[in-house]
Amino acid sequence: MSTTHAYAVQSATSPFEPFRFDRREAGPNDVAIAIRYCGVCHSDLHTARSEWGGTRYPCVPGHEIVGEVTAVGDAVSRFKTGDLVGVGCMVDSCLTCDACRDGLEQYCEVGFTGTYNGPTQDTGDNTYGGYSDRIVVREEFVLRIRHGEERLAAVAPLLCAGITTWSPLRHWKVGPGKKVGIVGIGGLGHMGLKLADALGAHVVAFTTSRDKERDALALGADEVVVSRDAGAMEAHAGSFDFILNTVAAPHDLDAYLRLLKRDGTMTMVGVPAEPHPSPSIFNLVLKRRSLAGSLIGGIEETQEMLDFCAEHDIVSDIEMIAMRDIEEAYGRMLKSDVKYRFVIDIATIDEKG
Amino acid sequence: MSTTHAYAVQSATSPFEPFRFDRREAGPNDVAIAIRYCGVCHSDLHTARSEWGGTRYPCVPGHEIVGEVTAVGDAVSRFKTGDLVGVGCMVDSCLTCDACRDGLEQYCEVGFTGTYNGPTQDTGDNTYGGYSDRIVVREEFVLRIRHGEERLAAVAPLLCAGITTWSPLRHWKVGPGKKVGIVGIGGLGHMGLKLADALGAHVVAFTTSRDKERDALALGADEVVVSRDAGAMEAHAGSFDFILNTVAAPHDLDAYLRLLKRDGTMTMVGVPAEPHPSPSIFNLVLKRRSLAGSLIGGIEETQEMLDFCAEHDIVSDIEMIAMRDIEEAYGRMLKSDVKYRFVIDIATIDEKG
Repeated sequence: MSTTHAYAVQSATSPFEPFRFDRREAGPNDVAIAIRYCGVCHSDLHTARSEWGGTRYPCVPGHEIVGEVTAVGDAVSRFKTGDLVGVGCMVDSCLTCDACRDGLEQYCEVGFTGTYNGPTQDTGDNTYGGYSDRIVVREEFVLRIRHGEERLAAVAPLLCAGITTWSPLRHWKVGPGKKVGIVGIGGLGHMGLKLADALGAHVVAFTTSRDKERDALALGADEVVVSRDAGAMEAHAGSFDFILNTVAAPHDLDAYLRLLKRDGTMTMVGVPAEPHPSPSIFNLVLKRRSLAGSLIGGIEETQEMLDFCAEHDIVSDIEMIAMRDIEEAYGRMLKSDVKYRFVIDIATIDEKG
Repeated sequence: MSTTHAYAVQSATSPFEPFRFDRREAGPNDVAIAIRYCGVCHSDLHTARSEWGGTRYPCVPGHEIVGEVTAVGDAVSRFKTGDLVGVGCMVDSCLTCDACRDGLEQYCEVGFTGTYNGPTQDTGDNTYGGYSDRIVVREEFVLRIRHGEERLAAVAPLLCAGITTWSPLRHWKVGPGKKVGIVGIGGLGHMGLKLADALGAHVVAFTTSRDKERDALALGADEVVVSRDAGAMEAHAGSFDFILNTVAAPHDLDAYLRLLKRDGTMTMVGVPAEPHPSPSIFNLVLKRRSLAGSLIGGIEETQEMLDFCAEHDIVSDIEMIAMRDIEEAYGRMLKSDVKYRFVIDIATIDEKG
């Protein structure tokens, strides 16, 4: 066993505090990783505060993990000490169901093991995530990072925000000749803009805030539409092949469904705590449109995304924080006051406040 | 001009009464048809009573038309006098937009001309449907009927109920090895059962009424699930490739979305007057499911469906009525008291009540 330094919450209403626990030693198929940086995802906050219910305490969030391999098990063939690697939202799955065999472990029919708050497949113990200085993960769930080391912190958010937008963009075949909308310019949306642009699509950013117009263009949008402007929305009616909707707050889906052309799809990657107003079936029927959902992405496509991003020099736009400032970061995240992702410098984990 | 004997309503609150009007003579591209039978669709009632708004009076409904060719224009090549033919929901469209060129005139970007209550493309006049003894339609919108003449009345509902279920079943690739649900066993649903069965799928009928169980099996279902039985529903969780939902009344869509496997789609063909309860985005995200809509079908696929039905000896289950009994039929249709489609014997159009 090796002692891990971490930050945890002990209940839904407790603040984060230093926490120590033991990780397992690396077994034959395991990779031991010294965590260097961990991105801060909105799911971390939902789970820490048990806003979705079902949180097991102590809770150590974090599933946008990057670091360096410190040891590998005897049976590990693809990684060696010193490699730069990443770990995303999953650390295990059954690997035998149809979904796993299709490389889509996020849809594992048994249920994947989350990087945090997930009962382990063997003992049913709680899993502890990346707000910690080390992690041990079976080889199949470790990703190779081909970006230069100087980009490492900004790679972290690719492990959740990146793959969550990449997977639907690829599944619905976004590329040259396609007109694609990205709704919401936050942690997910800013990655959606970068990726859809790099995939060669014509990209339109939708935002409620005119302030984000310049940023959206810099992130890769070809056009920006302020969604409160009914005339601007109407000008795009029936013209989109695909819309990726990253907004989890309840909102009018019809305003976007109307913008899809025949056989177009709008895919939701955020789950609202309260339902959206019920979408119009008429809008779906009229042009054979679809409303769909998508959950993170599989390991194979995560590696594909990381390699694509390395090749195209794509990383997340980040603000680095010290571990002790996590509560303040959550407060700012709730106000969307971050461009566009906080990343924790894990080297600060033992620093006093 | 030729005088047409019909039944019309003069306002949203008037009963049907005999009505005479002139149809145009058959132009070079037109087919003149003596109507023999016309199916009674729920849309007829919605339109006659202006429940969707926008009805122009007098209103002569009817878009499940079968009859015999009485004359053809000089340029008509595919039909001749005496042919058995059908006309469905559309009598014209632009024929030049992407949708029309794809054989999907129902999604015409200019808007198709409805068989009734549709402004004509040339003069903007109102169109009058199949509650009448003759109709003149441009060749492109006339369908050939290859069933024997003795089946003609029961073919009529294929022109709307048949194609409305056929088009999504084909678009979402229903066939051998696929598990398919049909929600609702009415005019549309009973055709959905017959067609999905003939296409070789494993077909599950969903009904609120245990009374319909035997009928559903006879219509082609391999299994019947009473949707109020939570345990029976749960037993099918995550197992359907495709669900065709024919129920227009507001209901819980999540109960069915949960039954779809990964990448499964539920397609709605009924538009409710009041919205369904808002479907859970979580159910869509969890297995990359889709909620879609579909509108009737194109002319090419309508012919394909008619030919398939002739080959497989498929027709609608009908109750024949006299024209004068249309009000009573509407009353029974509102109570779902019909197995499964009323068809008007147009030979009765001049009979007194």
